[in-house]
Amino acid sequence: MPILVVGSVAFDALETPFGKVDRCIGGSATYFSVAASFFTEVDLVAVVGDDFTDADAEVFEGRNIHTDGLQRVAGAKTFFWSGEYSYDLNVAKTRDTQLNVFADFAPRLNERQKQADVLFLANIDPDLQYDVLKQAKRPRLVALDTMNYWISSKHEALERILREVDLAIINEAEVRQFTGEANLVKGCRQILTLGPSTLVVKRGEYGVLMITKDAIFAAPAYPLENVFDPTGAGDTFAGGFLGYLASRSEIHDRELRRAIIFGSVLASFTVEKFSLDRLREISLRDIHERYTDFRALTSFEDFDS
Amino acid sequence: MPILVVGSVAFDALETPFGKVDRCIGGSATYFSVAASFFTEVDLVAVVGDDFTDADAEVFEGRNIHTDGLQRVAGAKTFFWSGEYSYDLNVAKTRDTQLNVFADFAPRLNERQKQADVLFLANIDPDLQYDVLKQAKRPRLVALDTMNYWISSKHEALERILREVDLAIINEAEVRQFTGEANLVKGCRQILTLGPSTLVVKRGEYGVLMITKDAIFAAPAYPLENVFDPTGAGDTFAGGFLGYLASRSEIHDRELRRAIIFGSVLASFTVEKFSLDRLREISLRDIHERYTDFRALTSFEDFDS
Repeated sequence: MPILVVGSVAFDALETPFGKVDRCIGGSATYFSVAASFFTEVDLVAVVGDDFTDADAEVFEGRNIHTDGLQRVAGAKTFFWSGEYSYDLNVAKTRDTQLNVFADFAPRLNERQKQADVLFLANIDPDLQYDVLKQAKRPRLVALDTMNYWISSKHEALERILREVDLAIINEAEVRQFTGEANLVKGCRQILTLGPSTLVVKRGEYGVLMITKDAIFAAPAYPLENVFDPTGAGDTFAGGFLGYLASRSEIHDRELRRAIIFGSVLASFTVEKFSLDRLREISLRDIHERYTDFRALTSFEDFDS
Repeated sequence: MPILVVGSVAFDALETPFGKVDRCIGGSATYFSVAASFFTEVDLVAVVGDDFTDADAEVFEGRNIHTDGLQRVAGAKTFFWSGEYSYDLNVAKTRDTQLNVFADFAPRLNERQKQADVLFLANIDPDLQYDVLKQAKRPRLVALDTMNYWISSKHEALERILREVDLAIINEAEVRQFTGEANLVKGCRQILTLGPSTLVVKRGEYGVLMITKDAIFAAPAYPLENVFDPTGAGDTFAGGFLGYLASRSEIHDRELRRAIIFGSVLASFTVEKFSLDRLREISLRDIHERYTDFRALTSFEDFDS
């Protein structure tokens, strides 16, 4: 069933200890869409400038992605982010951010988009997230991502949208920042009281923790010997996670857990190369194989009592 | 089957955001012994001063722990460590260390101790670890722990002992420090080439990674809403892990994985109160219950293909 994502399509300049690239495709909605499209039909809503060429748009082609919601603004430039990583690949240092067309992004959904079954509000201004949510008819599942910038500058707006979503995908440090609670589990329970039934906490190289009112699920990240570029790992995770969920007729604990693993699998591919380079060359078979590796990585038997 | 531990028995002064204690029992061998004694017979080799009273020694009583290897030195004081933690409970700040009797610790094993089936060389001078190892007859399994101090001050001695052990239990940051390799998996593989067949990497609140030549196993830490005092968590983990292994007739991948979970379970109890207070009040039944909780925390099904 179709999933709608509203977020950014961008150009990135990246430098890691393993290489450097001056201009490559990035953006939360880009990573999300490509990852989710392995499992379901994706409706992409984003904005680019006229520097975004047909060759650039090929990243979405031959996949299950509707791009009529990718608005091109003439005479303007695409959102640009430049960042670097040192050997500690967990922390990106931003060198430059140019919002460009993204500064005036005010998405209007068409009729098909309004009918989306699952809605993902990627990391954008929480007021904009709210506005998009109000345009949607009755999505079965609404999820959002956010970041430290919105937590400090738009705390109330973020709280308002959190009250309306089913699921939030958020970094560990952001849980602590948002709640002021040092203990992660307590912080998560505080956010759950606002409204979401499920909280998915991203912990970088340490994996993911999912907390609902009834259960906690912990998944490690896939231990890679070669992490090349962590950009987009979180958005790829969200795409794999929600894309898989959107493809299921029912969403319950068993499917949520599987979805966490699929999200983690997709993210583990993304970081193996720059930009979406690795994501673009894998198949569903590669994804299934790594899912099986995850079972071997985490499984242990009950004890003999 | 009996497990021999050589390490420290100490007094600690601790301050966390949740409380303060001026003098409580601590030390690597103390936490290790009590944790391991839930599963097997323990032989403790350590040294204390005459300030270590019979009341203090009660921590070992009524358990499966031989204490004739706990040497008391008249007119001398027990090893003392004072530390504090802020809300980020992952990092201890040392206020004071007084080696006292521990400065001249030169353990001599008796005949029973030399026959130990499993040997754990807790975090002491690697030359001392080597000396103890050479006294042991034919242990089925030899494991060690170490710390950043020995990695920088006694790198060659540490490498010598690493060549002789089957298993090393080490912090994540110490793998990177010892090898100079930023990627954790690569760093582990480098240490495995020295000799150990198994490396157990402690990652604090993120759990444990076990790496052998053939497999990787990842276990999360138990997500606690109340972490009171992290002191001793690593040594408790080692005690539960090796104590369980010592109780098994064969040591292979399945048992190693179970042992990791038992170690994690024991460590999760330790941090719930100061010193060994929580460890002293739990039963094997509590341990088994939390083991079952760990299965619920980590399990997920294969996908429907």
